[in-house]
Amino acid sequence: MSKWVYTFGNGAAEGTAKDKNLLGGKGANLAEMNLIGIPVPAGFTVTTDACVHYYANNKTNPADLDAQVRGGVEYVEKIMGKKFADRENPLLLSVRSGARVSMPGMMNTVLNLGLNDETVLALARASNDERFAYDSYRRFIMMFSDVVLDADIDLFEHALEKVKEDKGYKFDTELTAEDLKHLVEQFKEIGKKIGKEFPQDPWEQLNRGITAVFNSWMTKKAVTYRRLNNIPGDWGTAVNVQAMVFGNAGDDCATGVCFSRDPATGENMFYGEYLINAQGEDVVAGIRTPLPMAKDNSSQTSLEEAMPTVYKELCEIREKLEKHYKDMQDMEFTVEHGKLWMLQTRNGKRTATAAVRIAVEMVDEGLLNKEEAILSVKAEQLDHLLHPTLDPKATKKVIATGLPASPGAAVGRAVFSADDAVAWVAKGEKTMLIRVETSPEDIAGMDAAQGIITARGGMTSHAAVVARGMGKPCVSGSADIRIDYTSKTMKTMSGTVINEGDWVSIDGGKGEIIEGQMPTVSAELTGNFGKLMEWVDSLKVLEIRANAETPRDAKQAREFGCEGIGLARTEHMFFEGTRITDMREMILADDETGRRGALNKLLPHQRTDFIELFKIMDGMPVTVRLIDPPLHEFVPHAEADQRELASKIGKTYEFVAQRVSALHEQNPMLGHRGCRLCITYPEICEMQTRAILEAALECKKQGIKVMPEIEVPLVGSKKELDLVKAVIDATAAQIFAEKGESIEYKVGSMIELPRAALLADEIAQSCEFFGFGTNDLTQTTLGMSRDDTAQILDEYRTRGVYVADPFASIDVPGVGKLVETAVQLGRKAKGHDIHMGVCGEHGGDPQSIEFFHQTGMDFVSCSPFRIPIAKLAAAQAAVKYPRK
Amino acid sequence: MSKWVYTFGNGAAEGTAKDKNLLGGKGANLAEMNLIGIPVPAGFTVTTDACVHYYANNKTNPADLDAQVRGGVEYVEKIMGKKFADRENPLLLSVRSGARVSMPGMMNTVLNLGLNDETVLALARASNDERFAYDSYRRFIMMFSDVVLDADIDLFEHALEKVKEDKGYKFDTELTAEDLKHLVEQFKEIGKKIGKEFPQDPWEQLNRGITAVFNSWMTKKAVTYRRLNNIPGDWGTAVNVQAMVFGNAGDDCATGVCFSRDPATGENMFYGEYLINAQGEDVVAGIRTPLPMAKDNSSQTSLEEAMPTVYKELCEIREKLEKHYKDMQDMEFTVEHGKLWMLQTRNGKRTATAAVRIAVEMVDEGLLNKEEAILSVKAEQLDHLLHPTLDPKATKKVIATGLPASPGAAVGRAVFSADDAVAWVAKGEKTMLIRVETSPEDIAGMDAAQGIITARGGMTSHAAVVARGMGKPCVSGSADIRIDYTSKTMKTMSGTVINEGDWVSIDGGKGEIIEGQMPTVSAELTGNFGKLMEWVDSLKVLEIRANAETPRDAKQAREFGCEGIGLARTEHMFFEGTRITDMREMILADDETGRRGALNKLLPHQRTDFIELFKIMDGMPVTVRLIDPPLHEFVPHAEADQRELASKIGKTYEFVAQRVSALHEQNPMLGHRGCRLCITYPEICEMQTRAILEAALECKKQGIKVMPEIEVPLVGSKKELDLVKAVIDATAAQIFAEKGESIEYKVGSMIELPRAALLADEIAQSCEFFGFGTNDLTQTTLGMSRDDTAQILDEYRTRGVYVADPFASIDVPGVGKLVETAVQLGRKAKGHDIHMGVCGEHGGDPQSIEFFHQTGMDFVSCSPFRIPIAKLAAAQAAVKYPRK
Repeated sequence: MSKWVYTFGNGAAEGTAKDKNLLGGKGANLAEMNLIGIPVPAGFTVTTDACVHYYANNKTNPADLDAQVRGGVEYVEKIMGKKFADRENPLLLSVRSGARVSMPGMMNTVLNLGLNDETVLALARASNDERFAYDSYRRFIMMFSDVVLDADIDLFEHALEKVKEDKGYKFDTELTAEDLKHLVEQFKEIGKKIGKEFPQDPWEQLNRGITAVFNSWMTKKAVTYRRLNNIPGDWGTAVNVQAMVFGNAGDDCATGVCFSRDPATGENMFYGEYLINAQGEDVVAGIRTPLPMAKDNSSQTSLEEAMPTVYKELCEIREKLEKHYKDMQDMEFTVEHGKLWMLQTRNGKRTATAAVRIAVEMVDEGLLNKEEAILSVKAEQLDHLLHPTLDPKATKKVIATGLPASPGAAVGRAVFSADDAVAWVAKGEKTMLIRVETSPEDIAGMDAAQGIITARGGMTSHAAVVARGMGKPCVSGSADIRIDYTSKTMKTMSGTVINEGDWVSIDGGKGEIIEGQMPTVSAELTGNFGKLMEWVDSLKVLEIRANAETPRDAKQAREFGCEGIGLARTEHMFFEGTRITDMREMILADDETGRRGALNKLLPHQRTDFIELFKIMDGMPVTVRLIDPPLHEFVPHAEADQRELASKIGKTYEFVAQRVSALHEQNPMLGHRGCRLCITYPEICEMQTRAILEAALECKKQGIKVMPEIEVPLVGSKKELDLVKAVIDATAAQIFAEKGESIEYKVGSMIELPRAALLADEIAQSCEFFGFGTNDLTQTTLGMSRDDTAQILDEYRTRGVYVADPFASIDVPGVGKLVETAVQLGRKAKGHDIHMGVCGEHGGDPQSIEFFHQTGMDFVSCSPFRIPIAKLAAAQAAVKYPRK
Repeated sequence: MSKWVYTFGNGAAEGTAKDKNLLGGKGANLAEMNLIGIPVPAGFTVTTDACVHYYANNKTNPADLDAQVRGGVEYVEKIMGKKFADRENPLLLSVRSGARVSMPGMMNTVLNLGLNDETVLALARASNDERFAYDSYRRFIMMFSDVVLDADIDLFEHALEKVKEDKGYKFDTELTAEDLKHLVEQFKEIGKKIGKEFPQDPWEQLNRGITAVFNSWMTKKAVTYRRLNNIPGDWGTAVNVQAMVFGNAGDDCATGVCFSRDPATGENMFYGEYLINAQGEDVVAGIRTPLPMAKDNSSQTSLEEAMPTVYKELCEIREKLEKHYKDMQDMEFTVEHGKLWMLQTRNGKRTATAAVRIAVEMVDEGLLNKEEAILSVKAEQLDHLLHPTLDPKATKKVIATGLPASPGAAVGRAVFSADDAVAWVAKGEKTMLIRVETSPEDIAGMDAAQGIITARGGMTSHAAVVARGMGKPCVSGSADIRIDYTSKTMKTMSGTVINEGDWVSIDGGKGEIIEGQMPTVSAELTGNFGKLMEWVDSLKVLEIRANAETPRDAKQAREFGCEGIGLARTEHMFFEGTRITDMREMILADDETGRRGALNKLLPHQRTDFIELFKIMDGMPVTVRLIDPPLHEFVPHAEADQRELASKIGKTYEFVAQRVSALHEQNPMLGHRGCRLCITYPEICEMQTRAILEAALECKKQGIKVMPEIEVPLVGSKKELDLVKAVIDATAAQIFAEKGESIEYKVGSMIELPRAALLADEIAQSCEFFGFGTNDLTQTTLGMSRDDTAQILDEYRTRGVYVADPFASIDVPGVGKLVETAVQLGRKAKGHDIHMGVCGEHGGDPQSIEFFHQTGMDFVSCSPFRIPIAKLAAAQAAVKYPRK
């Protein structure tokens, strides 16, 4: 018999914080809080295993689940001194989801469960507040009908509005107990009429509530959220059933959300919001504007002032939890008639700035050591710190302000729906998503946009929480703006009108909304960030190089602390200015002589480029990849362009058209490209080798330390590499003889075809380094062209075939197996006499970096902006998996 | 110190027949013949290692080679009682190539080496024949100038012709000793004038002769021959240096080529040709028409009559060698003044008919056991027996006859050069190559043509030998025809003119040339062939299935003894008749409803097809692959066709054009195809499952034994397969419920992506069989699109990157490693509960089959015509590598 139910309450618990996989994050922490003496309403957790069982068995619960749930309820009854479904002193329950990792707002919750026509009377008696009891009951019926019965909730809303209208009320709070009793009857009638009758039996309510949470694991929005966050669909969610406590049972009641440090700045202060006489969802929903925890200079009444004893107790809990979890905590609490209950604690989401500050300060405070501090910062999040902020010297027209919900600068064109944001971005536009408020349905649009503006909602509103998680700038709850979805406009109090497509900028750190397209400046990389990066550098094993070929990128990469260039793509250099004409002449030439003529024109340009690059990278290795793409990528395909080219290179249009069409390939990815070009046209390889080595000699003469590495792409066998290497070495020998001077250079092989990985031991014999091209390796191993399968991959991720996008994060079981094989074969052949690294886009992805570290790779190479991220990820990997 | 030289002579030898890799085939057999007491002129072999050393060291011979060669010459001198470079009794040498496998006519030979202005006098004295001595000398200078000095041979030919003209001679034989002396002087002058002076020093002649043989390993024709025959370029050739014996030193001299059985029919008779007073090359070159070995009914003088003692000795040697080598021998001999010398023996090339007959008869004779007999037939060669012969009932107009040089029927359009043959075939035409005679330069054209006709040359002429090796029908030496290359015509004695492009047929078994395009009939599969195949069936382990979907192919496959269908491609069924319109309607439909409508129209057609297929395959498994190619392959791309389709399916042209363009993919090989289609459009999978299983139920009702297997293409992960399998199983359950009847079926996965091979253990969990799609697996593993890289692959094979075409014969080190991995993982997961086989084109390639047998595969599937070949290859593999 499996154990599906784990109880907790009154200082005891069957689980601990370590049981996140089984009990979900929320459930595991509820158990843990009990164990360390924090007041938590008693309850029990239905395991994620039960949810997995549910889906594996055609949506059927385990046979023995019901009995175990009844056991759990009995346990709660004993502690709380109430009885579920009792007419005298009824126990009411909350039913909440809780997956391994937090998926805020994505799944269902049912509160006040256990109320029916009889228990409501008892609640009225017990609370001595009939209005409270019937308000709770009508809320419960609405929530249950919506979430569990999947009824059309508008019918209920409509009935509620009708009563208010009839009575001339403005707010829900004006409804009397009698109004609410009447409404409850109406609600029950509506349910019956539409065939979704509200069940009076509390046990039926409970069972269906639990099942509803299981079902919510598979809603479209939950699936989308998981896809965006690479969360596997087969984990399932746990269900937490807990005794209800009421923050809305009078003015000695309250509810709140708080953080043990400021999640935006990282400052060590008690940060949070609360509302008197409210239920938890009211704070998060952003309908009433919440009040601050600690006393400040504003006129708002803080919790510290309103409920000093509770505040003091909360402060102690804050300290206790932070010390216990060694991390900043995000907590939910409810005060019921003056008694404090903790409903949740978890490691708090935070901005990148906050993450870095908290990590560094916790080391200063002696709470963490450097290794732990490094592990506490999400590498991916650093991205946020590295990107530009608004240029402080530029004049800006602030047209409105709001809450500084998520810091950073964003500039984009106004759109007013998530769908529009996605559509505009697909067309290559940058967008600013402007919404009254956001809901989980907007996730895809938020992800697509540069930044987010909302008119409603606090610092813990959906928009704010999600934006911070994504590292997207956000200004929330701006009272200065009016948004009209019909005309797609945003109007400010001062009369400025922003139409769809107009440029808008925001400073998410200040809460400013600015008209127009603002210039931006680079990030500061000193202070806490600098300190953290020092630790990172001392701990990481992997060398971090940059993928860069332009001087701008190379300089940026050095600024971010790169340790060399891991991939300079030479073909990019052929597109600039007039070079493309020479390149095209070369491609369309009749014979080798024609090609050599055109190549001679390209040589000085490419040599100049390399000189510049080598100067910037003084003292560091620079890996230059020989020409890779199929030649048809360089030639024009439109008739007009072909005619123009023909006249430029002195050929007929027909000649050009015929040659271009001869270059056409069915599957260019698998065609005449990479080293196949160098083998067919060795003169290209000669020219490139000459440009690289002549540049290197020139720099050496100027006292610059050059470490050129020549990389051969798309190698599939040792023999192929040998043929190209022979051309490189012969050209080098010739240059050295001409100049009477030489320089050391290395020759390496890309490993980007399955065959190369499988025969890496042989290939290693002929080269001094490997550059893993994991983009192409992924395309060939999966048989998926990145250009053609974006839609299929989306569908595949939705259906759980792949968890993460295999082009963003390396497919460990498949492609990873080949990478591992290649590293092992390479080492077996040459030990550490061969240098190995990754230069695909995976080189900048933290999860992939962790894997590459484990394989025994020597370096990763990534785009300049991802270098600090890669370094942090490398350090984290080194801490988690120390190399011998 | 390496040993580069192996001597032989006078019953002793340093090597044996087992040293083929080191000494080449010729050298190893020369050694062996010595050891078994057969008269062979003494000599020595320079090893293939020396040749490999030569190429690995920038064309330099090993430092100690010269000394070892001198040692070898001393050895020969001692045995032959003559001295190299001696003015009194000079030893003359022949220098011949000899690779591991025979490459007839591809490499260089130098005869009469050692002659100079002084030794020629000695030769004249010793032979008492001045004319013979100077004829030998002038031949030597010509050959040396041509082969070693690379001089323009036309200059020498011209000088020779000039002398004949001046003197009014018609034949070379009319030249007197004085004429020849004069010619020798002229030849030396010519050499000096063009800077290619003939060296007088015999030692220099020898060294340069050996090096010339090394160099001939890399001539263009040799490289081409190796590419066509999958011979690795790094083997190198050995060089055989032997004492000269002269078949042209008088009328008591002769030279000949003979076979221990008839190489055309396999009949156990002494077959061969000889010429009195001739050198070996004269027989092969086909300039003089040679005479038969054994006495027959013709008027020609046989060797048996001309030299009865020699003939008797030869008959004894024939028997001795055949028993010793347990195979039919191809021998060369020379008679010098009545003394018989054997110059070469090797296993003889033979026609497929001969191979089968010899194998079967040698078992009857007790010379071979069944296993050995099976190994003696080349699997690839059987192809020849399986293809049609001319229909004997059709009237035929024989316009000329020639020698029955290589049996079988061929029908093609007349071309008159090898280049034309290649060019016409590239355009999709079948050709008949018509030449005066062929030379090694014509190989590519002979390979491309259906058959070969020559006007000159005997049964052992170049055309005849090569055609038999290739299994191509050939009529050689037809005296009835006149060929004019300029007008591209062939004229017969009876006045028929065949112009380029006219249809010509030949019966290579009868030597007939027939006007027009003759009908052909299938081969007889009984007699010796049937007997051999019985042994094959009893020895092989692999099950042999057919790739077939049409009734015609399926019937053919059963006739050839297939054991089931391993691959029926369902998409081929969508092109017939009106179905393509329904298919296109399905593809262009707006939504699922539209697709289902069109699919419903396709269902009955596909069901009928399967009923027919299942009936033919009664009692055998039939693997049906679900739709595989990308959808754009089914839609029209030309505007006119799109307009026509639009009107047929009631849509606008713009709609059709837009939808077709939306289907375009950058790399369709890696795009939306295979099981990705079934996942995106499960209704297609439902329809196909329904067609298969409804057909199966219908057949079952009729008492037919149906074993349907449904195969899912392009699987990359277990989860993908699970998604498709769920649709198949649900559809099956529904059909069985509808019909109240069920049938067993299997679901399997193609393994055709590297990822599938790497994760085959997981995939095995969800299926009952694997079908290895080695075509796609090769494309993805090598990163080579078959459509786009034919030219590159040619170049790669020429340059030794690949030995064989990896799409024809499996790339064992690369793709093979993945196949092996997948088989092992599959077995680890499921042992023999999973059935595994190959259904790519490699399934019919003997070398690949040997590899698949070794991996532990259960079956291979190939095109119907290759089934007997596959069976024989499977039996050979089983004999060579018995499974435990």
